[in-house]
Amino acid sequence: MGVCKIIPLGGLGEVGKNMTVYEAEDSIVVVDAGLAFPRDEHLGVDLVLPDFAYLRDRQHMIRGVILTHGHEDHVGSLPYLMRECRIPLVVATRLTLGLVKSKLDEHGLLREAELREVSPYDEPFDLGPFRIEFIRMAHSIPDAVAVVLETPGGRIVHTGDYKLDHTPVDGQRTDVGKLADVGNRGVSLLLGDSTNAERPGVTESERVVGEAFRQIIPHRSGKVLVSSFASNVHRMQQAIDVAVDCGRKVAFVGRSMRKNANIARNLGYMEVPDDLVLRPHELAELPANEQLILCTGSQGEPMSAMTRIAYNDHPGVQVAPGDTVIISAKPIPGNELRVHDAINRLAKAGAEVLHEDNAPVHVSGHGRAEELRTIIGLLRPRAVMPVHGEFRMLAAHAQIAREGGIPEDSIVLAENGSVVELSEHGVRIVDRVEAGMTFVDGLGVGDVHDVALRDRRRLAEDGVLIVVATLAGSNGRGALTAAPELIARGFGEAAEPLLEELRAEAEQVLKELLADDVTEIKLLQEHLHDALGGLIYDRTQRRPMILPVLVEV
Amino acid sequence: MGVCKIIPLGGLGEVGKNMTVYEAEDSIVVVDAGLAFPRDEHLGVDLVLPDFAYLRDRQHMIRGVILTHGHEDHVGSLPYLMRECRIPLVVATRLTLGLVKSKLDEHGLLREAELREVSPYDEPFDLGPFRIEFIRMAHSIPDAVAVVLETPGGRIVHTGDYKLDHTPVDGQRTDVGKLADVGNRGVSLLLGDSTNAERPGVTESERVVGEAFRQIIPHRSGKVLVSSFASNVHRMQQAIDVAVDCGRKVAFVGRSMRKNANIARNLGYMEVPDDLVLRPHELAELPANEQLILCTGSQGEPMSAMTRIAYNDHPGVQVAPGDTVIISAKPIPGNELRVHDAINRLAKAGAEVLHEDNAPVHVSGHGRAEELRTIIGLLRPRAVMPVHGEFRMLAAHAQIAREGGIPEDSIVLAENGSVVELSEHGVRIVDRVEAGMTFVDGLGVGDVHDVALRDRRRLAEDGVLIVVATLAGSNGRGALTAAPELIARGFGEAAEPLLEELRAEAEQVLKELLADDVTEIKLLQEHLHDALGGLIYDRTQRRPMILPVLVEV
Repeated sequence: MGVCKIIPLGGLGEVGKNMTVYEAEDSIVVVDAGLAFPRDEHLGVDLVLPDFAYLRDRQHMIRGVILTHGHEDHVGSLPYLMRECRIPLVVATRLTLGLVKSKLDEHGLLREAELREVSPYDEPFDLGPFRIEFIRMAHSIPDAVAVVLETPGGRIVHTGDYKLDHTPVDGQRTDVGKLADVGNRGVSLLLGDSTNAERPGVTESERVVGEAFRQIIPHRSGKVLVSSFASNVHRMQQAIDVAVDCGRKVAFVGRSMRKNANIARNLGYMEVPDDLVLRPHELAELPANEQLILCTGSQGEPMSAMTRIAYNDHPGVQVAPGDTVIISAKPIPGNELRVHDAINRLAKAGAEVLHEDNAPVHVSGHGRAEELRTIIGLLRPRAVMPVHGEFRMLAAHAQIAREGGIPEDSIVLAENGSVVELSEHGVRIVDRVEAGMTFVDGLGVGDVHDVALRDRRRLAEDGVLIVVATLAGSNGRGALTAAPELIARGFGEAAEPLLEELRAEAEQVLKELLADDVTEIKLLQEHLHDALGGLIYDRTQRRPMILPVLVEV
Repeated sequence: MGVCKIIPLGGLGEVGKNMTVYEAEDSIVVVDAGLAFPRDEHLGVDLVLPDFAYLRDRQHMIRGVILTHGHEDHVGSLPYLMRECRIPLVVATRLTLGLVKSKLDEHGLLREAELREVSPYDEPFDLGPFRIEFIRMAHSIPDAVAVVLETPGGRIVHTGDYKLDHTPVDGQRTDVGKLADVGNRGVSLLLGDSTNAERPGVTESERVVGEAFRQIIPHRSGKVLVSSFASNVHRMQQAIDVAVDCGRKVAFVGRSMRKNANIARNLGYMEVPDDLVLRPHELAELPANEQLILCTGSQGEPMSAMTRIAYNDHPGVQVAPGDTVIISAKPIPGNELRVHDAINRLAKAGAEVLHEDNAPVHVSGHGRAEELRTIIGLLRPRAVMPVHGEFRMLAAHAQIAREGGIPEDSIVLAENGSVVELSEHGVRIVDRVEAGMTFVDGLGVGDVHDVALRDRRRLAEDGVLIVVATLAGSNGRGALTAAPELIARGFGEAAEPLLEELRAEAEQVLKELLADDVTEIKLLQEHLHDALGGLIYDRTQRRPMILPVLVEV
């Protein structure tokens, strides 16, 4: 028996950009290729990708990429990976592949790899020295799977994201029978989702949210808006089912919501009769109590549908007294203030806002401690490597493994870049490779279609522009105290006239916004970013990173 | 019967800087004088105060300031208010006054006002046209009170912060008997705490946390650290009681923790025998299972005790495998990422970290919906004005009032600066005055003693220095890509040599930190801020606002 190396390139010590390399006999299989969203201190960054250096140097060894489900933190960096490395094969279930196809199409990469659709009921297949099969898992997106890899070092189960959920909306339960069956065959190593390892008990079923919708929606006399992750197909389906039952029609608002709804409907994952789906402006002609609006923006993202609706800045949708807004998601840590701001704005507009603090309108997609114990009980792995989570979550998962009887030297607390070796002698960390972050900056946020997303290496060529403006605004009424100052890097010597023009443009944009009583720093930054970016692109066809720094005095 | 004006200058549409003006017959009484903590977009700001302009223009009318309890968001701006306005009298209960005295002493203002200690059992007393009495309320700090104001416009109850808590740690229950009694006398207007109005049910008793401590602490073999708000005297007392019972001694770590513990012990609000209180370095000589450390930093504040301990940067306290850290607080919205970072660091150091997500080690100090209903039931006010909360919380409180039978036109949804008039004809918003924010910037965070806190008006004289540095750090190993650039405002013409020196200093500081593998943006910013601030103060005795902008490429 031989050896298999497991190298996590992302997802450990963080929530986001999940990616794990499995390597044996000069062959590599990659499980997931996700992205992360930047933190506020990553000024001006739109996306964070794993560092692909390890794979770039071993391209010839890559047999394929396997995707566990269609969430951005598991599939979002695939186009960027494919730009850097030749990927011969992408393997995923039907919905996951549908979402990925649309993404690759936008990046012009649709013909670059074989896209193979699989089902968790297929026979195992070989990729080099790896024999691969799948197990159906319940999660907050349909068609999620765990991956079973028979490797020269032993049998590995990689759970992907999951919860047990014995009553999922589509009836597609986590396949505990197959988990037990694989457990009986013998599992050398489990790589398991740690997201909710710290939380005691069991995560509620997705069905709980549907029951909440059924309590809420039929009794409302105004418009109902439901904001959730655009990939949460079951969540949308449950809202639609209740709304349609009480005579409402449906509009999808926000680009990713429209896109995902289209994909899900085309592939049969979402059912809503064509004549009940309207465009927002058509919907607006109906009485308020016949409208259901499903929109993006549950994280309070600056240019998303819900945020624009909250700030009364959306062309198609307005909120009025008597309307109900359901935020059917939990803020990702760091987004709390943005979400709170949006809720306050919506409440001021007269809407009743329901969110996880005041109504059971959201449940997690990740299993809690008792579910992790169940998985360990079913698989009885010889070793456990917690993945998918901040260190505290990995540590909590390790504790669960310990309590489940896994010996201390068979619990692997790895980091991104750890090289973990699995063989008949067990599992251990043998080395460490580079596995940092790669930043992506574009113009605008969230709208891949309209902006040329570019990675930081190209960015270094295009330069950086920092705009500093000082506002006198202690009474909520802002005014520029002086013309904005600009710091440019990498613009070259000939840039002085352009900088002059940019300075004038920045001043103009800010003055107009302030005259319109736009004083939210985040909105000012966003508008400044877009205006200057557009001007620079017009003049130079370059897209530097633009950092607006606004100081209130 | 006459008229009373109620003018909230802070605390509405926000959580923080509570302050309400009561005005009748050319007399003003102010209830609370709090501060708020800045949001991340308020770059370089340490504290946010109410705008005192309204009071500054009417100083001669001020009869006194009444404080409901000793939390920073209710008393923190008192010294700044006293610098701007002559305040003849400050009225508060024993512990509140103890905390305030220490604050005024630091600001050199101890002799500027009469400080009058009251008890909720005192007879009513007069302040100009107002007759004042108090009602004992339970909260997350001892000695909290509601204020009853008999005004020419009618009887007003201002609850301050409260929960009902029928089993508080000190036995000092919310005085429902007196609330009912005041209700029987007739209440024209209730100004009530809205913080948890959105949450259904009832907040758990503080005693629940003590029970959790009793489940946790006796079974631990390592050090136990408990981090909470320094004002949460009951919380500390409960940890101490359990620890002492199982043979541990106690150290208070962090300046505000030491200070508050001293005040609380001197005034009899905290009981711990002298011989059980040690300094951190003395404690460290004991076996780990005989140590209890109570420390600041439950909000992940950058230079606080817990953050420094987490980053292994504290001179007196280290965390080792087997130790337990209990974070007995909830992150204030916006602080989540900092708290998560600290938890991850502590977990990496081998500590077990218990926090509200994985153990019942925190309860709120604010009552939920059913408690708000109870208060309305006891007082039966003719009108309700929700205060203390973001708009969505005020709206939820308004809904509770509506359901409690308060007529729509007697529910006042006011904003900071609203002028609300109460008379025998009822209550209505009649005008609006300026009520924005005042920013305070100092060097360093959290340590009032060491830094000259100054307000923005003085700051405008001292100027602004923006430092922009670009780091190449995609693999977690940062390096400066060029010398930092500086933008100065208000430094005058002669500043060029100083700017040169500052540029060199900034480069030096960053290079040294990066060489020491310090790559966290927040830490780099903090160090840069302090180093440049110190240098500028040395050379010019001025303290400009310093904004370090660090860009990773």
